[in-house]
Amino acid sequence: MGKAVSPLKPAHLPQMPEIAGVRLATAAAGIRYAGRTDVLLVALDKPTSVAGVFTRSKCPSAPVEWCRARIGGGRARALVVNSGNANAFTGKTGRAATRITADLAAEAVGCRPAEVFLASTGVIGEPIDAGKFAGVMHDLAAGAAPDRWIEAAEAIGTTDTFPKLATATARLGGAQVKINGIAKGAGMIAPDMATLLAFVFTDAPIAADALQALIARSVVDSFNAITIDSDTSTSDTLLAFATGAAAAAGAAAIVRANDRRLRPFRLALDQVLGSLAEQVARDGEGASKLIEIVVEGAVSKRSARRIALAIANSPLVKTAVGGGDANWGRVVMAVGKAGEPADRDRLSIWFGDIRVAHKGARDPGYAEREVSTYMQRREIKIRVGLGLGTGRDRVLTCDLTKEYVAINGDYRS
Amino acid sequence: MGKAVSPLKPAHLPQMPEIAGVRLATAAAGIRYAGRTDVLLVALDKPTSVAGVFTRSKCPSAPVEWCRARIGGGRARALVVNSGNANAFTGKTGRAATRITADLAAEAVGCRPAEVFLASTGVIGEPIDAGKFAGVMHDLAAGAAPDRWIEAAEAIGTTDTFPKLATATARLGGAQVKINGIAKGAGMIAPDMATLLAFVFTDAPIAADALQALIARSVVDSFNAITIDSDTSTSDTLLAFATGAAAAAGAAAIVRANDRRLRPFRLALDQVLGSLAEQVARDGEGASKLIEIVVEGAVSKRSARRIALAIANSPLVKTAVGGGDANWGRVVMAVGKAGEPADRDRLSIWFGDIRVAHKGARDPGYAEREVSTYMQRREIKIRVGLGLGTGRDRVLTCDLTKEYVAINGDYRS
Repeated sequence: MGKAVSPLKPAHLPQMPEIAGVRLATAAAGIRYAGRTDVLLVALDKPTSVAGVFTRSKCPSAPVEWCRARIGGGRARALVVNSGNANAFTGKTGRAATRITADLAAEAVGCRPAEVFLASTGVIGEPIDAGKFAGVMHDLAAGAAPDRWIEAAEAIGTTDTFPKLATATARLGGAQVKINGIAKGAGMIAPDMATLLAFVFTDAPIAADALQALIARSVVDSFNAITIDSDTSTSDTLLAFATGAAAAAGAAAIVRANDRRLRPFRLALDQVLGSLAEQVARDGEGASKLIEIVVEGAVSKRSARRIALAIANSPLVKTAVGGGDANWGRVVMAVGKAGEPADRDRLSIWFGDIRVAHKGARDPGYAEREVSTYMQRREIKIRVGLGLGTGRDRVLTCDLTKEYVAINGDYRS
Repeated sequence: MGKAVSPLKPAHLPQMPEIAGVRLATAAAGIRYAGRTDVLLVALDKPTSVAGVFTRSKCPSAPVEWCRARIGGGRARALVVNSGNANAFTGKTGRAATRITADLAAEAVGCRPAEVFLASTGVIGEPIDAGKFAGVMHDLAAGAAPDRWIEAAEAIGTTDTFPKLATATARLGGAQVKINGIAKGAGMIAPDMATLLAFVFTDAPIAADALQALIARSVVDSFNAITIDSDTSTSDTLLAFATGAAAAAGAAAIVRANDRRLRPFRLALDQVLGSLAEQVARDGEGASKLIEIVVEGAVSKRSARRIALAIANSPLVKTAVGGGDANWGRVVMAVGKAGEPADRDRLSIWFGDIRVAHKGARDPGYAEREVSTYMQRREIKIRVGLGLGTGRDRVLTCDLTKEYVAINGDYRS
């Protein structure tokens, strides 16, 4: 199926530096797709700190369960990701497949299976043939190289229409450290994916516990602040790996997440995760517009988040934006349904910088023509002022279009 | 705009009996639409018990606030409903409009304004011109007749493609009593409606407090168990009116909702509300299939309801059904995201009578061809067995189609 590239695709790919101790390789194992890569092996040359954040689904995939059981060990030597099959709702067969895959990777890179981390994305409920990894694993390990970032981002995609990469640097003690990240988005393959996978690598010497605290904090306003269609995948996985190679150049060894020297690193990490999350929203199925929703004046940040998500998940708001309609009545509706403190008579709404509603009624000052022109843009900002407190939050989403229905209404097989 | 009639429309309209003490009239007041009726007056000849259930939106419409403030009085003499304008988010002007409308109706039927109940549906945020009611109110009151049920249901509709009516009878003490109901559905008018309005009339002699308890119970498995697109309107209103006229024929006067003699009446009320709610789901925008979702084996009914709604509100499940795809992987996803107790390895899923998933994996016994044939039907039943307890619930929804996007992506003006 030829996929039209999202009109919201970033203008250019970032220049990804190499990260000492991280080598990548991809292969076409024929899991589901023909004529494209579908397996990524990341070989970590030395024992590497690892941390992870996973889906809250009560029906997680077998790879999510595999990672959860081993993330406490804090040490990784390899990551294997496949696209085409999520290995979710696959019962004992699925669990056996994770074991086989980890054993193959462990043998190929020379480590224990418990040091291998796994992620899968694609169809739910189809048994995965782990034997297909056997044919490619040794070549992957032998051919892994430090410069294969774009290939890696491409191999893990499903209905993504562009590869998602981000990079940043930060001072950490006496040296500069690097952070590279790749992600796949909420595209859905014929059948069922809305899986978000993201992998972040750094040469900073950060202990696993500290790394865990850092990513748990950084996802709040990045991956947890985007929504395409309110559907939570069985497979959502963010894994972070810190090789520590920069210690040789003088980077400070970090044991605790509240270490003051981490401040620049934290900002860089936020930047990488924020960029990847925005790219996911830009590549939502059928998306023609990126929508930024800012809620201010709520009683708390948590309350602002809930209201922002109610707006972002409203099919009526999303279809209106897709149709170029500054339909603020639907924003009122979404604020009202969120169940959070809101006072209709203090509510104000802006599209871009144009205030369309003020203190519980239509703003008499706004010109429909002006706001109509604004709504033709590719990037739409909806701002809601509640006038109750200082709580503020921001989420990203995209519009709901006929293409979304077409992509997700196609028959599986 | 020519509206294609929903393919899920019931085969025939019910025969609506007259209800003593209830007279109806409709008019074209030109609130927004041309060439159709848009105002309904129901004149209640004697003081009538009234009870109501309203939207939980934090931004309710002016008519909802009007009714809430007066429902405690328990007595009604008139109901005025208009379509075309929801009188929501209209500030002081909106409040003034409810007062003007109630004054006009009170004068026309000869009662106090506090005995007039109001509901509006249509565009949000547009000031409503209550003066338009002045021109029609006296003719409405003079011309009201007991047999205008279909006209009444038509006048209150917005993007509804068929009028929604239901009727039932029940024994109450020494006489048979009647219940008539009309509703408008979750169709959206160019701009913002997902409003559900429903009005129920009976000649049973039931005190207002008891009537309130009866409808509060009956909405749980009728109007509160349907969803079109998860968007809650600012205007949802259910009002029930009991004239008591059947007392003359020997019907028992009821003061308490737990009166044993009410049992047949309760069943009849459930039947009327259940039928109206199903008709609303059948007329969801762009609907091509009615979807019944049954969740069994949950830890409680409440938990089953939440899981059923997570499935019913999932855009991925709804698009799959629209596309004729028995995509049970998406049902697994929706169960997983509901946040309720669920054990993947006990989960079973049926489409119709065909079990497609069993104990956490694909059911090896099902034939794709058989389930594909089933998915071509107009009415699809998805059943989920959790295997945890005895909690069971059922909700109705419809599929998500390109027509939904088209209807709701059209520009407002």
